[in-house]
Amino acid sequence: MAPQHEGTEVVAEEAEAEAADADKKLISNIVIVIAMQTEALPLVQRFQLMEDPDTVFPKGVPWVRYHGIYKDLRINLIWPGKDPIWGVDSVGTITASLVTFASIQELKPDLIINAGTSRGFQAKGACIGDVFLASDVAFHERRLPIPVFDEYGIGARRTFSTPNILRELNMKTGKLSTGDSLDMSPQDEALIIANDATVKDMEGAAVAYAADLFSVPAIFVKAVTDLVDGDKPTAEEFLQNMVAVTATLDQAVTNIVDFISGKCLSEL
Amino acid sequence: MAPQHEGTEVVAEEAEAEAADADKKLISNIVIVIAMQTEALPLVQRFQLMEDPDTVFPKGVPWVRYHGIYKDLRINLIWPGKDPIWGVDSVGTITASLVTFASIQELKPDLIINAGTSRGFQAKGACIGDVFLASDVAFHERRLPIPVFDEYGIGARRTFSTPNILRELNMKTGKLSTGDSLDMSPQDEALIIANDATVKDMEGAAVAYAADLFSVPAIFVKAVTDLVDGDKPTAEEFLQNMVAVTATLDQAVTNIVDFISGKCLSEL
Repeated sequence: MAPQHEGTEVVAEEAEAEAADADKKLISNIVIVIAMQTEALPLVQRFQLMEDPDTVFPKGVPWVRYHGIYKDLRINLIWPGKDPIWGVDSVGTITASLVTFASIQELKPDLIINAGTSRGFQAKGACIGDVFLASDVAFHERRLPIPVFDEYGIGARRTFSTPNILRELNMKTGKLSTGDSLDMSPQDEALIIANDATVKDMEGAAVAYAADLFSVPAIFVKAVTDLVDGDKPTAEEFLQNMVAVTATLDQAVTNIVDFISGKCLSEL
Repeated sequence: MAPQHEGTEVVAEEAEAEAADADKKLISNIVIVIAMQTEALPLVQRFQLMEDPDTVFPKGVPWVRYHGIYKDLRINLIWPGKDPIWGVDSVGTITASLVTFASIQELKPDLIINAGTSRGFQAKGACIGDVFLASDVAFHERRLPIPVFDEYGIGARRTFSTPNILRELNMKTGKLSTGDSLDMSPQDEALIIANDATVKDMEGAAVAYAADLFSVPAIFVKAVTDLVDGDKPTAEEFLQNMVAVTATLDQAVTNIVDFISGKCLSEL
């Protein structure tokens, strides 16, 4: 474990008091992290957000910030942009953790929403078009077979608890497992099963890691584009379902944001 | 590819001119990124660096900065620290990209050195205790079987070219492949072979990605603790060789820093 410093208890008490205050404060500032442009743009329109010409992020990064006020909420939607070399959406854990880190530093959000499409497991009750609010996140591609390092690699953690959103919006919940590959190797599969995952994505656990460093609450809204244990080939199924499922995802995010408006963290 | 904006050519010319100036300026400010404490501490002693009590990094991160002046070079050695939950070294691509990103923002280095232990491939000429200066880096755990996304996932890129270091210090060179697992699945192996890698680590390509966003030159010094295609079990071999190989790594980094002192980038 990390070394204990003098005054740790005082700091812990202060942090608890701060957290309790934050729980009772109206949520005013949300960061939404979305990896793909096709997932992001309908929400930009829905919330009538504007692209920031003078980005708050350092010169050099392709990250795009859309922002605006929607139902008294300051919304920052961050899309990691197109890769400077290959020109495709900058998907995956590295960019997800970087934009989350930088967004927390620059925008001080009350809450982070990571939204995106994902792959689901039929055997765990997922259907194409379902939208899950993840109860837990973990990694399935960080295999470190040394005691304690193995747990660090998996990095399992609970997400911010939102029982009222789940109940009021009648959403499904399940565990989310994250890795940088679209396909699934037998080693990935073994860890995904060990992680008890219902959905699999490429960003969630990385967003959670960066948010947890600063104790910023984060929730994970994942819509199922294809089934890992279904009978269609992955890439084809993924592309076919992408447009329709994105619309469902965007509706779910809008419902969540509508629900959040005028509430404090403890009411979620 | 990324959209072309008006004035792109002017910006490109200015960037080229700036790069040419930087190539001729004496190197004065180095960031060394090292993932493991046992690899970092001997170099902290060697360069007589001090731990920064008021870290330049945001409150909440476990990252540790050691700094000092050594042979007219301002050296910042960044170790990502112990994980706040599990207490082990924060190894892997996410923390490596985060500390590289934040170090570039806060410390504006002329050059980044990512140093660490690695696994080598006997079939490609690696022996235990060898220290490689990587010619190229790539990922082997980011499988995205969609055109162009596949290349983005692999993220192959050349490192900053240092022909004089290679020749004067008589160092080996080879390609480096990066992933978040210590072991190697058949899928990893196929991509490592496709990447033509001689050494395999858990940070290099992530450091390169973050450095490339800001066109900061980066070099990769990787010492071989165990052979992937050798006959000993991984974890045992890794732990046995760790101490001796770390001493070799630290000597190689010292030799490189000694060589850099009083030179500009174009002389490396």
